[in-house]
Amino acid sequence: MALIVQKYGGTSVGNVEKIKNIANKIAKFIDDGQQIVVVVSAMSGETNRLTSMASIIAKQPSSREMDTLLTTGEQVTISLLSMALQDLGHEAISYTGWQIPIATNNIHSKARIEEINSKKITSQLEQEKVVVVAGFQGISAEGNITTLGRGGSDTTAVAIAAALSADECQIYTDVDGVYTTDPRVVPEAKRLDFITYDEMLEMASLGTKILQIRSVEFASKYQVPLRVLSSTQDGDGTLLISEQDFKESTMEKPIISGIAFSRDEAKLMILGIPDEPGIAFQIIGPISDANIEIDMIIQNQGHDGTTDFTFTVSRSDIHKAEEILRASAKKLGARKVQTDDSIVKVSLVGIGMKSHSGIASNMFKVLADNQINIQMIGTTEIKISIVINEEQLDTAVQKLHKAFELDK
Amino acid sequence: MALIVQKYGGTSVGNVEKIKNIANKIAKFIDDGQQIVVVVSAMSGETNRLTSMASIIAKQPSSREMDTLLTTGEQVTISLLSMALQDLGHEAISYTGWQIPIATNNIHSKARIEEINSKKITSQLEQEKVVVVAGFQGISAEGNITTLGRGGSDTTAVAIAAALSADECQIYTDVDGVYTTDPRVVPEAKRLDFITYDEMLEMASLGTKILQIRSVEFASKYQVPLRVLSSTQDGDGTLLISEQDFKESTMEKPIISGIAFSRDEAKLMILGIPDEPGIAFQIIGPISDANIEIDMIIQNQGHDGTTDFTFTVSRSDIHKAEEILRASAKKLGARKVQTDDSIVKVSLVGIGMKSHSGIASNMFKVLADNQINIQMIGTTEIKISIVINEEQLDTAVQKLHKAFELDK
Repeated sequence: MALIVQKYGGTSVGNVEKIKNIANKIAKFIDDGQQIVVVVSAMSGETNRLTSMASIIAKQPSSREMDTLLTTGEQVTISLLSMALQDLGHEAISYTGWQIPIATNNIHSKARIEEINSKKITSQLEQEKVVVVAGFQGISAEGNITTLGRGGSDTTAVAIAAALSADECQIYTDVDGVYTTDPRVVPEAKRLDFITYDEMLEMASLGTKILQIRSVEFASKYQVPLRVLSSTQDGDGTLLISEQDFKESTMEKPIISGIAFSRDEAKLMILGIPDEPGIAFQIIGPISDANIEIDMIIQNQGHDGTTDFTFTVSRSDIHKAEEILRASAKKLGARKVQTDDSIVKVSLVGIGMKSHSGIASNMFKVLADNQINIQMIGTTEIKISIVINEEQLDTAVQKLHKAFELDK
Repeated sequence: MALIVQKYGGTSVGNVEKIKNIANKIAKFIDDGQQIVVVVSAMSGETNRLTSMASIIAKQPSSREMDTLLTTGEQVTISLLSMALQDLGHEAISYTGWQIPIATNNIHSKARIEEINSKKITSQLEQEKVVVVAGFQGISAEGNITTLGRGGSDTTAVAIAAALSADECQIYTDVDGVYTTDPRVVPEAKRLDFITYDEMLEMASLGTKILQIRSVEFASKYQVPLRVLSSTQDGDGTLLISEQDFKESTMEKPIISGIAFSRDEAKLMILGIPDEPGIAFQIIGPISDANIEIDMIIQNQGHDGTTDFTFTVSRSDIHKAEEILRASAKKLGARKVQTDDSIVKVSLVGIGMKSHSGIASNMFKVLADNQINIQMIGTTEIKISIVINEEQLDTAVQKLHKAFELDK
């Protein structure tokens, strides 16, 4: 008998018929003798409905009251799903975040889970009940209702799986797993049977938005086997495991697991600034202070005692970043400021890079062979990222996918 | 500075515009220097929306899950109203039933309040905040969400007023007070400035459905000054007070406060049964066992050693009651069973009856003068009820209203 924590998102429970379908799906696991804890989100559309009422009521709704408002969404789902399971003859019981309780800090709208008391859940599982838990929500030490922020239900599921030492945490989504790259760009993209937490984090942060990053971090920290699979199709999905487990397994280990890319990139350059200590901080500091996240940074030494500085930000931040950069440029006596919001980032991700050399040069060769100019390069232990012109994105991803045999 | 508990029902908070209006209304009280605790219901329509989803999901939704489902309704209202107050520049904070907490027993869908902890409310009032509390809901000792049953928000408001020793509990409704009788039947009906709890209970249970009976009982028990008034019109409404306070006041005391009536009545007769001890129980017992509420009962001795038995039930119960009665009739060898579902009940209500004699005979004279036949009579200390044919209801109420000078 395995203990499984399953999470169903808003689309999977979007109306009463879909909730009944999910109940049927869960019933099969019960009939197979599994112990099931279900974590659910608000029915799709519900969060928008509530948010739009709030925005009519107040210009700046307080975050405490927003959390109280939005958490009704999952509370509706847990009660309806419990009823649906009961109607099928299965004992089921619902719990809100505060009922468990799922203790969080008091940062409304993006609270962090501090502790989960698993006593109630364990006791109900022992009584052979399905336990249905509201995702996304918790309770602060002051007794206020909190929410975990966008995609927080994934984190709830993983945290509960960790607290229960569950055999597996299954995240049901509208895709049937993690792919080697976006199938809309590369039709030959293949579903991965396994991926390590670290690889997934690189894939997720690069725009493959299947799981909330925090839930993967959580799974990695507590070594929760985390499976991504489709709520409507059959299949084993993709299992996220630790590098250790991956190495100890008999699975064939590809060097490259996947190709991630992001279109939400813009580049800023400040040219001809004095090449002296502290210059990087003087440029990057004001940008960070304005809460603009900087991704890649490159500094090139010039031949005349000056230096050039290039970095990337989200496209939505480019105008604000440019304004700040031009002010810095004036102060530092820079020669020129340039921006480019038609760039994209493409990344090869794979733990195999750690033990295999030559991946980068292989990558550059593929790009060169296809007349793709590399504007910036950045690397981590398990990732090589390049910045290229957005018009060449599809070609780059397709050629790399083929060259690294991800379609095999 | 007075401490006032105000309750607004579902119609008053039926959409975001109405919620903003209520916030404006509350803001005026705050500006006048009052301390305000607001109790609200779910937005009108919301409970039906949730109930209909549940009824599609399950044939018999569990009452625990129904309570979890339905209480989201008030949770939405408290957060939106708090936001609306904050948007007007007033500090406001919302609390669900479990946050207060409002401790109840564990009878789902009709829980009773056992204790209200007023600490949080008091502390927030001291910080000059408006406290917005979800009506209708509480929490059981086991940590389950409970509801107080239909109209439970009134009870929440009165119970909180009692716990806080508030100066007044104001129930805002769609009528501007308690009338001497239904103005749709008697256009000259007058709004009462005052009424005692006991009179209100008699009026309410007889079909003048303004306040939930339990809330009046609660107000009576804890001597909470309870005011019924309109959420849309100005005016002082009707204040419910104790008989003691009424006597000690300088207000003119009418003998009769009002005329209540109920159309939801049906009569059953069992004729020619043996006149022996225990016969009443043998007839009434099986009816009560079937959860049918019996209102008036009359037993007439016959001249041949037999007796006749007449009683009234709700119209919706008549077929079930008749079936049971016919079974009893067979067993007891009764001569006949008759039913009549075209009757109504009219009641004079007034604490003045205690000290004034002759009210009943006056009443009977008025009815006789108008050719209205009395089928049954029942009395309490402050009420005389008669059963008549439904066709004569309007005439009876109009003539009695005039005869007892309720229009003066």
